Parts: sequence; C-alpha cells; structure tokens
Amino acid sequence: MKLRDIGEFGFINRIGKNCINNREKIITGIGDDAAVIPVDKDMLLLVTTDMLIENIHFKRESITGKELGHKSIAVNLSDIAAMGGIPENAFIAVGIPGNVDLDFLDGFYRGIKEICKRWKVNISGGDTTSSITDIVICVTVTGAVKKNEVLLRSGALPGDIIAVTGYLGDSGAGLRIILEKLPLKGNSEYLRNRHILPEPCLKEGRVLASSGFVTSMLDISDGLSSDIFRILEQSSCGARIFEEKIPLSVELVDYSKKKGKNPLEFALNGGEDYALLFTIKRDKVDELKSIYKREIGRDFFEIGEIAETEECKLISSSGREKQLKREGWDHFRK
Amino acid sequence: MKLRDIGEFGFINRIGKNCINNREKIITGIGDDAAVIPVDKDMLLLVTTDMLIENIHFKRESITGKELGHKSIAVNLSDIAAMGGIPENAFIAVGIPGNVDLDFLDGFYRGIKEICKRWKVNISGGDTTSSITDIVICVTVTGAVKKNEVLLRSGALPGDIIAVTGYLGDSGAGLRIILEKLPLKGNSEYLRNRHILPEPCLKEGRVLASSGFVTSMLDISDGLSSDIFRILEQSSCGARIFEEKIPLSVELVDYSKKKGKNPLEFALNGGEDYALLFTIKRDKVDELKSIYKREIGRDFFEIGEIAETEECKLISSSGREKQLKREGWDHFRK
Repeated sequence: MKLRDIGEFGFINRIGKNCINNREKIITGIGDDAAVIPVDKDMLLLVTTDMLIENIHFKRESITGKELGHKSIAVNLSDIAAMGGIPENAFIAVGIPGNVDLDFLDGFYRGIKEICKRWKVNISGGDTTSSITDIVICVTVTGAVKKNEVLLRSGALPGDIIAVTGYLGDSGAGLRIILEKLPLKGNSEYLRNRHILPEPCLKEGRVLASSGFVTSMLDISDGLSSDIFRILEQSSCGARIFEEKIPLSVELVDYSKKKGKNPLEFALNGGEDYALLFTIKRDKVDELKSIYKREIGRDFFEIGEIAETEECKLISSSGREKQLKREGWDHFRK
Repeated sequence: MKLRDIGEFGFINRIGKNCINNREKIITGIGDDAAVIPVDKDMLLLVTTDMLIENIHFKRESITGKELGHKSIAVNLSDIAAMGGIPENAFIAVGIPGNVDLDFLDGFYRGIKEICKRWKVNISGGDTTSSITDIVICVTVTGAVKKNEVLLRSGALPGDIIAVTGYLGDSGAGLRIILEKLPLKGNSEYLRNRHILPEPCLKEGRVLASSGFVTSMLDISDGLSSDIFRILEQSSCGARIFEEKIPLSVELVDYSKKKGKNPLEFALNGGEDYALLFTIKRDKVDELKSIYKREIGRDFFEIGEIAETEECKLISSSGREKQLKREGWDHFRK
C-alpha cells in the first residue's frame, strides 16, 4: 500500500495513536493548530511546527529569499494566532543545497528577522545542514496564552455564528498566477503577494480570544472547504455557510471574471489564506463586533452558523442548499 | 560567494546577530544544545530541533524505517540530556516522497513511538507533507530542567577535569562500515548499530546536572575535536586532552587494527557518538565518581583538563604535545 491510497489525513489518523506517554505534560497534542502544554496555574505553552520544501511549497525562481523567510515564519505565527496566543521564540532548521547563493540566504534571514522583530519573536535556535537539491525549511514557534483564553477547534456549539477575519481565495488565485507565470501587474501582483507574504492575524487572534465570546478558532491553511470540517469534526456538529457572505476581494472578483473562473472556487478550495476562522456565541456577536472594530479598525465577516446536524451545507444566494464537499489540499493525493 | 566559502559555523555566526527581540522570553538561544526559556522561578523550558535529510544523514537502503524513527528522536533527546534536562514533548515534521512504502513509514513511527514510550515523551504534534525525492525529518523536542541545575557550554573553568560518558569513535567507524557496504557481522554489526541506534544519555545527564559538581556539558555530535572547542570558546579557556585516556571500545580497536586505521581518528573526528562531554570541579571528581557509579552502574572517563590558555593540546602517551585541530563535520564544506 502507498501513502496516496490513504491520503494525508488518513495517514495522520494512522499515526495519531499511542502518542501520549506523560499525560501531565500535554493538554492538546496532535490535531489542533498548536500543541497546548501546561506551564503553571494561569499560563499555557503553545508549540507549532511547519515544514516548507522547495518545489512542493515554493519555487525558488518565483520567490525572493526575503519573501521565503517571511513566509516561513508567518505560517507558524498564524498557528499561534489561531490559538489566541502570543508568539515568543522561533527555531529555524534549514537544509541548504550547494547551489544556493549566499545572497538568497542572506535575504532569507533578513525576511525572518524582519517579521520576528515586528512581532517581538526571538530567533532562539535551529539547525543548519546541507541538502541534495531542494531547500528545506522547518520552523518551530513557541508561544504563550492564558489558560482561560486558549481557543481550540473543539468548542463550537449549535447556534454559534461562523466568521472569518479576512478575504478568502486571494492566496489560491495568487498561487495560480505564480504557477502559470502570468505577468505581475495590478490585481495579479496583489494576489501574488497575498500568497507569498501572508501576515499572521496575531492581533485579531488576541482580541477574539480575550473577548470570551469565541468558542473555537483555527487558521485557514488548507482552504475553507477543508478547514471548516476540522472545527465540525472536533466539535461534533454541522454548519450552514452562506455563499454570498464569503468575503471576496475586488481584486479576486476582477481577476476571476477576466479568467472565466468562479472566485468562490478559490475561496473554498484555495488554501493558504491564513485568515482566522472562528465561531461566536450568537448572543455576543454584536458586542464582539464593536470590540473588534475598536481594537482592529475593521470588521470581521459572518459567513454562516453552526448546526446540530453533522452535515456542512453551502447555501446559494437563491436559497439553494448543497453539501459542502471536503476539498482543499491533501499532500499525499494531489 | 557560496556557502562553502564560509562553512557551516561561519554561516551560523553570520545569522546569529539581531536574533533577540524579547529578552524576557529567552535565557540562552543559538549556540547551545538546546534553547533555555524561562518558565517560573524554579523551572526552565528547553527546546531543541534537528533536521535529518535522506542521502545527507542516512541512506534509505542502509537503515530500516524503525531505526530511522529511533535515531530521529534520539539525537534530539541527546540535546536535552546535554542540558541536564528531562524531555517532555516531541514534534515530528516529515516530508515524504511518493516512492516511500507505507511499511517503511509504519516502521518509522514504530521506532519513534518505542523510544518516546521508553523516555516518557509525548508525541504532541508536527507536520506531514510530500517531498520530491528525499525523505526529510525535522524533530523538535521540548523538555524541562531546574533553574539551578541547567548545564550550559559556557561554565568550564581552568583546572576543571574533562570527562565523557562513553566510548568515542564507534559511530564514526559504523558510518564508514555502512558507506563501504561492509558485511555486518561481529564488530562490524556492533559498530554499525552504534551509528544507527544511539541511545540518549538522559539518565547520565540528570545525574551529572543534579550533582552540582559539573560546570559545563554538551553531547558529542560532530566529533570530540570539534565539540571540545564549543566548550572552550564559550568558556574562554583551553584544554589538555590525554590521548591514551580517550575511551575506545574493544570493537573499535579491533576493527581499526584489521583495517590499518588509527582508532583515535574515529574518536576525535568521527562524530555522532552522542556521549556527553562535560567538565567537573577538580575537587569534586571523586565524589561525583561514586555518585555516578551508584546511579548509573558504570564509570565515566576522565580525558583531560581545562587550561588557562586558549589552545587545545592533545598529549600522547609519550608526553608529546600537539595542537588539536578543529575537525569534525562541517555540512557546508564536505
């Protein structure tokens, strides 16, 4: 049997057994954006790790070293944001083939240092090694969150409102633009940069977590149509998502129109938007809206509601319902 | 300029600046076996990460999945041991090419789970992704150590005795045997297994750290001739190492004799022995010896002493002194 027969998530389920050997030292392990580790009576430690491999996650010719450094850190900070946490320390392991220019590497570390400085994250360790042909990057970030503020994927309850912090689909369209080597101007450049330079929603995550009104949260890394199911499965519930409420940038809509594509396809299945997807106690939505607006200066977007059933339904503007299919990225099947 | 022009350690020095953006959240960052992070008034958090890349660190045809799983964890546990710590949580990121058998992967996770169970370490997260041709593994381990017991590389003082916990050079000879595809029997099999299946010196590390008599420690991953300098540089001192006191296994001596090699070459430059190298307050050596013997059931090996000069001298059995050259593995120069 090969890996593609069981897929990435079948594989994760396969290995996820017998992983706990010291229950006192872990609260939530495999299966959330970051692991949650007890520290003291008030605080929790968060740990997350992400691997980026050349020609799988990026092409060297379509990203600068500095952009790659930024993105390597950003995707991990986004995981800390998704727990409501504050990032503290980053550990950077890199495998570097002999044909990499020192300029590219210097840029890579400049990108890392810039985003780490902005978010007050220390670069506290790592590993450097040679590799054969492809650059390999594995970043681990630790962070902290108060015990009574941590947001897991498992807290959604029927009736809760589902919301996201930002536009969806831009990154997926940006990836398409990169892969098709389309000229970078106007919308294309914006969309490309939304793929290459995601900014972690750390402030948003803190505001949402500290409000006490949010019941579950994650960051959209694989695509809404895939990631919503992570909340639904872990919270044992279903959802109704309203197509017309899914926030789309004018750039994405405009690009999609020109290309004869449906922008919703990008929004549902594109992945790597790194917006936060979260659920809110229904009677606290208005209060949270005003807190969020005051603190962040923008609105979040309500896109649906949690339902009792185990289905996830997508409802069109005309009121037609269809089952949302679990799509998004599977590393071992594509 | 290319990476090979500056070498691995030149590169690490190059990137090691402007890494601290939140001093309160880090005690010791880049440059020790593990990062040391404050937790509360008594305890410290340790974090270490190591990347293993196929055809750089291992060949798929000369290691089983289970052995690879063991080694991936063992090298990280060894870093926690080198700080005097107790490992708690492991995070396993893997990049898997399409041609890997599920059997190999199942073995890999069996190996991981076996060693994690033995050392009561949780498998608490990670990342799984596809890769193009080579298996990539990046393991991060967190651990704990009491503030007054943590052992850094920087505490050695002139007069201290230098010691190691086990035989040196076996692993280097084992690597040679693997690369030369020599038949595995008797000594060859023993040496091969010493390379493939290192066991972290966690108990030894705890006994040494909790004694209060040890002033600095690290684990020998690149070779004595390279790793001793990490203590000397960070402690601003020199050393005298007595050749005849370097502990060699009978298997290594026997193998070397047959191959017409000097076993000391393996012991000095071989790397990956994962024995602990440490320095002891001179007047506490006898007391530590008896504690260690009682707790571990074996002796450690005194191999030299810390000197005031900045040189590291290697002294032969006839009393002839020579400068120890800094050798051992440099990923970007070999």
